[in-house]
Amino acid sequence: MVVTSQLHVVIVGGGFAGLNTAKGLGGVEGVKVTLIDRRNHHLFQPLLYQVATAGLSPAEIAAPIRGLLSKYENVRVLQGEVTGVDLAAREVTGSLGTLRYDRLVLAAGAMHSYFGSEAWEVYAPGLKTVEQATEIRRRVLEAYEAAEHEEDSDIRRALLTFVVVGGGPTGVEIAGALGEMSRFTLARDFRNIDPALARIVLIEAGERILATFAPRSSSRATRDLERLGVQVWTGSRVSAVDAEGVEVGDERIAARTVVWAAGVKASEIGGRLAGGDPVALDRQGRVRVNASLQIPGHPSVFVLGDQAHVQGPTGDALPGVAPVAMQQGRYVSRRIRAGLKAADADHPPFVYWDKGQMATIGRSRAVLEAGRIRMGGMLAWLGWLFVHIYYLSGFKNRLFVLFSWAWSYLSFARGARLIIQKTWRSYGDSPLQGVHGSTDDS
Amino acid sequence: MVVTSQLHVVIVGGGFAGLNTAKGLGGVEGVKVTLIDRRNHHLFQPLLYQVATAGLSPAEIAAPIRGLLSKYENVRVLQGEVTGVDLAAREVTGSLGTLRYDRLVLAAGAMHSYFGSEAWEVYAPGLKTVEQATEIRRRVLEAYEAAEHEEDSDIRRALLTFVVVGGGPTGVEIAGALGEMSRFTLARDFRNIDPALARIVLIEAGERILATFAPRSSSRATRDLERLGVQVWTGSRVSAVDAEGVEVGDERIAARTVVWAAGVKASEIGGRLAGGDPVALDRQGRVRVNASLQIPGHPSVFVLGDQAHVQGPTGDALPGVAPVAMQQGRYVSRRIRAGLKAADADHPPFVYWDKGQMATIGRSRAVLEAGRIRMGGMLAWLGWLFVHIYYLSGFKNRLFVLFSWAWSYLSFARGARLIIQKTWRSYGDSPLQGVHGSTDDS
Repeated sequence: MVVTSQLHVVIVGGGFAGLNTAKGLGGVEGVKVTLIDRRNHHLFQPLLYQVATAGLSPAEIAAPIRGLLSKYENVRVLQGEVTGVDLAAREVTGSLGTLRYDRLVLAAGAMHSYFGSEAWEVYAPGLKTVEQATEIRRRVLEAYEAAEHEEDSDIRRALLTFVVVGGGPTGVEIAGALGEMSRFTLARDFRNIDPALARIVLIEAGERILATFAPRSSSRATRDLERLGVQVWTGSRVSAVDAEGVEVGDERIAARTVVWAAGVKASEIGGRLAGGDPVALDRQGRVRVNASLQIPGHPSVFVLGDQAHVQGPTGDALPGVAPVAMQQGRYVSRRIRAGLKAADADHPPFVYWDKGQMATIGRSRAVLEAGRIRMGGMLAWLGWLFVHIYYLSGFKNRLFVLFSWAWSYLSFARGARLIIQKTWRSYGDSPLQGVHGSTDDS
Repeated sequence: MVVTSQLHVVIVGGGFAGLNTAKGLGGVEGVKVTLIDRRNHHLFQPLLYQVATAGLSPAEIAAPIRGLLSKYENVRVLQGEVTGVDLAAREVTGSLGTLRYDRLVLAAGAMHSYFGSEAWEVYAPGLKTVEQATEIRRRVLEAYEAAEHEEDSDIRRALLTFVVVGGGPTGVEIAGALGEMSRFTLARDFRNIDPALARIVLIEAGERILATFAPRSSSRATRDLERLGVQVWTGSRVSAVDAEGVEVGDERIAARTVVWAAGVKASEIGGRLAGGDPVALDRQGRVRVNASLQIPGHPSVFVLGDQAHVQGPTGDALPGVAPVAMQQGRYVSRRIRAGLKAADADHPPFVYWDKGQMATIGRSRAVLEAGRIRMGGMLAWLGWLFVHIYYLSGFKNRLFVLFSWAWSYLSFARGARLIIQKTWRSYGDSPLQGVHGSTDDS
């Protein structure tokens, strides 16, 4: 395609994939970018579990998308929701009306899946957004508060029981942080209860937690979790969730706080791509793309990140992790830039550079795999710390974040332990909401 | 009164007055303290306007009450709501059931008053809690976002018009911060609109803003506000507020974002003190107390802070500001301690040490009055900065807060500019709420 005027690139989603695409096209002559996101901020998702467990504040892991892109005159940011795409007409539609594109990058992410039982969501929030993280935080902290003045011992026990569903990195990290909270952070803050007696159960349907890691890492992580007081149940599938707890096969765990960190369901936009043959999706709703991240038959449309199903070297899809999304974003920006000068089709396909994976368990242990390296313990945790600070400070002053965040984190920052009520009204609504279990969303 | 066993002191409210009372009684032999608050955190209210204008995050100005008092074994904290007091039986009642007290300290604060028109609240939030601050922040940021893609110029103008009602320190500080946001913080972030063209109007019913300050300070502040693009309307009373704007006498201002920083209405607990002669309240619902901060006829009950009407040296009530509440808290703790050894009645009355007052206008100017000193400009602002850091770090590491908060503040911290949606659900509720004006609270 020969470009005579400005190429309009529309990017849907301001996460790792979308943001990196926009940055790669910022300041490029002949290209005009519109980035659309439902929210105004970019979220550093790997640390979202820290917000959910009151270790960090939302603002420490989020930044306004506008702020990150304001220096690029050719990039504009719009807050809105894209609900459909017309591939033939090359238009996206949604709350902002209709927008024509020359190139489209869909990077709208995914949410957790309840495997058909979406009604469970109100009892067991997922962890993909700041709102969900602060909701989980509220439930966890309120459970302790309620237990402090609860006289019925059965209810108290249920209040001090926390269930995490899903043994991937997210679930492991939440469970470890909850264990640490009960044994360290809150240790001296209560008079009637001993927070260290809280029971935390991590439930995984597969054979082992951290299934994408080596078996040795899974064992290590399991031991580290148990040391923090977390019970790890593998080969266990949750069959029901309600206000009182969860059912796992024949057993029932009475737990007032349940967190859902299992399953993947890609953005519904994938199912609303009209104007051509039906676009192939996988079971999680992810759009199947070719090796160059394009929708087959639509070379001007790319799908990235958690929203895409990209076949990896083993035949399985590439995982929905941050490094994949970042690299894909950069790849697409290079491809689009190259396409300005020469035919697109010559550009090499996307190759993921797998630098490894890691998961933390509490504040002093982690499991880390890179190439053939397998590490655990404190050394792995330090590696985790530096990698995350490095990537986080891609957009913040490195020195400040290192100091601020490390302090915040290492001192069991109390400031993040805020219970924010669900309603702000002084007149008209009671500001005190009942302890969760209520299905009232107002 | 002779004390033979532990004196149970119940404190209602974990703000400046309640917290300082508790701290003064922490570790004191023979005294057992129960502090009850509806929320789990203590809020540094003088900086709440910073949260509302996206300059600071909630966690930077709030701390969990438990954390602040955990070192005192004789102090316990309960999260709950007190709804009534039986002065004869010496009991408080509420969500925690019934609690007997030997001494009662009511420090439940106040909210803004709509002078009978509470229905206006949904269009014009007050600024007393974290939830209100983040709601205001959301509305302000969403107004700019909506304006960016609004094609109708009248609607766009209304979206870029912000009204602040109330010319006291709170209103002045919010208006100044909004002016600064439009001219500096957001300056380069938009492509379709120029944020600097936003119109901010501060409306005050009285003759001048900052009525408790000297006239010269009021003039200075007015000029500083105008320099930031804020229009100051004095002698103007708001007669109606709705989704589209406000009415001021004959005029109507089309504004989608209105903040209410006027009027005082003390906690309703003041009207629910049973078991004796009716307790005298003033027009704002504040409990009239004697010179020793006790309810006349009930020497074991103290009322402090914004909830109390204490006659000052001029005959007017002491203002509802932080230093008053802090000093009262310390006074009452001293009085209760002294009462353990000798008869209460000999203890001297409360005398407020007025160290002065100040208000900021943007990030580089303030007005400051202390004794005969009248200061303005940058010097006053630096004075304001250090006083607030000093008092804030009464409970946080001084070095860290100085660095962290000053950086955050001086660099127009983008991280605090988060739009947090009102609902966290992925399934069942659309995560994108309409631009404010909707009366839907869910």
